[in-house]
Amino acid sequence: MLPIIPAIPLDSIERTLYASADITAAFVASISGAQAARQRRLDLFGLIIIAYLTAMAGGIFRDLCIGALPPIGLADWRYLCATLAGGAIVLYAPQWFDRFKHPVAFFDALALGFYAVVGAQKALFYGHNAQVAILLGTATAVGGGVVRDILLARIPNILRKEIYAVAALTGAGIQVLGNTLGWSATFTPWLGASACILIRLLSLKYGWHLPLSRTEDEEPTR
Amino acid sequence: MLPIIPAIPLDSIERTLYASADITAAFVASISGAQAARQRRLDLFGLIIIAYLTAMAGGIFRDLCIGALPPIGLADWRYLCATLAGGAIVLYAPQWFDRFKHPVAFFDALALGFYAVVGAQKALFYGHNAQVAILLGTATAVGGGVVRDILLARIPNILRKEIYAVAALTGAGIQVLGNTLGWSATFTPWLGASACILIRLLSLKYGWHLPLSRTEDEEPTR
Amino acid sequence: MLPIIPAIPLDSIERTLYASADITAAFVASISGAQAARQRRLDLFGLIIIAYLTAMAGGIFRDLCIGALPPIGLADWRYLCATLAGGAIVLYAPQWFDRFKHPVAFFDALALGFYAVVGAQKALFYGHNAQVAILLGTATAVGGGVVRDILLARIPNILRKEIYAVAALTGAGIQVLGNTLGWSATFTPWLGASACILIRLLSLKYGWHLPLSRTEDEEPTR
Repeated sequence: MLPIIPAIPLDSIERTLYASADITAAFVASISGAQAARQRRLDLFGLIIIAYLTAMAGGIFRDLCIGALPPIGLADWRYLCATLAGGAIVLYAPQWFDRFKHPVAFFDALALGFYAVVGAQKALFYGHNAQVAILLGTATAVGGGVVRDILLARIPNILRKEIYAVAALTGAGIQVLGNTLGWSATFTPWLGASACILIRLLSLKYGWHLPLSRTEDEEPTR
Repeated sequence: MLPIIPAIPLDSIERTLYASADITAAFVASISGAQAARQRRLDLFGLIIIAYLTAMAGGIFRDLCIGALPPIGLADWRYLCATLAGGAIVLYAPQWFDRFKHPVAFFDALALGFYAVVGAQKALFYGHNAQVAILLGTATAVGGGVVRDILLARIPNILRKEIYAVAALTGAGIQVLGNTLGWSATFTPWLGASACILIRLLSLKYGWHLPLSRTEDEEPTR
Repeated sequence: MLPIIPAIPLDSIERTLYASADITAAFVASISGAQAARQRRLDLFGLIIIAYLTAMAGGIFRDLCIGALPPIGLADWRYLCATLAGGAIVLYAPQWFDRFKHPVAFFDALALGFYAVVGAQKALFYGHNAQVAILLGTATAVGGGVVRDILLARIPNILRKEIYAVAALTGAGIQVLGNTLGWSATFTPWLGASACILIRLLSLKYGWHLPLSRTEDEEPTR
């Protein structure tokens, strides 16, 4: 079995920092979800549901896996308010997002970075090993987008050509590395989140992608 | 954090009432799932699977989130029998449903109401706050239909124009309100379930819907 | 309530046997997932993700339901390595699979058998009743394929005409029967897994299927 990495103890300012990053991630993820729902012309409440699930699905899965019940996204009113605010802004001030060529992808990238580091940290905090922390940090980051894309019948982001899950994996990995090496708990999450967001946005801008798996002919689906 | 609302203690008759409502919900939900599967011409066992998942998926998710393990839908033979009965009726007496113009939607609406109140009550009973109870009551009610629709590649009910999740939310909300204000535990669930079912059926009949989110142009999917 | 069936105690050789069967199942399931991903021309990392989820999703669901946290597929490096190996073989030695007419279905069938018996055994080991063990053995076996097929927009295996979930149910059922009747813990899993794999492969080869549910006319989707 893999060794448990003790999470660096956080002082109260750092705890506030992590909670703020998590709620900020919920807010930007809900904007990405609401934008995607608006493009599908869902009604008001359908848009709110997609915004909420985009923001919360990854964290709910993480909390179920680490035994943090009830999942914080269900229990804490601040997350609900953050996602309602995100949905409301998209509904009532859609012109704010006209400057973005790809608003879904942009706000999704911001959430990706914050969720990856906070998700990894929470798994460590609950006493799990580095592998669990990296995998669940990644799952927290990508989970909401997967649910959004399945419900809206979009091609899931994690299966697209641009670098996506690798970015989340990098963010979660840096966070776990920082805990292992005893880096500052104030500095590490910014490094991890920035690396993740930067990789994702640059890969979108420049069309970076990993090599394709090749195949000569398709098996008939059965 | 939000305050915990203590669930009103139930006497043995009321406990039987709630259990009966839950099993009835499983039965009618399985009919809705089996009808949808039959429309897709699935085989006998595929139909049973869809009937079972339509009836159980929401409750399994609720039980995972509140820590009621193993989920009652997996462990209790009465739920399995109720869903098998629902599937069998659709298989062997399909003519019983010929009078219904939209059998999937009709039986789905009945399950929606019962599951919303029972789901909310169970979350309160496990010591969770009002927000958790309302959200998980709603999730119990809509979860099975979402899984059914994803597996059968139907447009998920929660994303359609008619009022659906709002109805479940109303039912769960009334149930939580009843617990908060100390209403009778015999009366409250009927009020909540009836309100939910009525809203849903009327919205189907009269085409009620919430305002659409508007958008001028679609972002290319990426 | 259903009676609890005490799992037959395993000696250390038998424990190794079960763990090996589980990791072998992860390996062959990841090959099936990677093959399906390659047919969709996913990139390298998308292929790895699908391989991992195909191998792990069923077991993660089982572990959440029985309260075995964190799910072993997330926590144990051997499962991660087995799925990475499966993905790498498909990526770098695809010609090994040219002899198989339906590589996805073939390796999926192997995983189906192993996962059904190991999943059922683990549920019994955690003190759950026969119904939970059979349902979760089946869910462990079919869960990964369902997630793979939803993400890749394939028709889910459990809804196709050939016998699939029935095979898994048979394997899990034999395993639970063996525990109930006190059969040898070395012999039972081989019997259950073989029966499951044989039923599945023969049904594919000879086009066996269960009777269809019939319907005269389709309800308009709404």
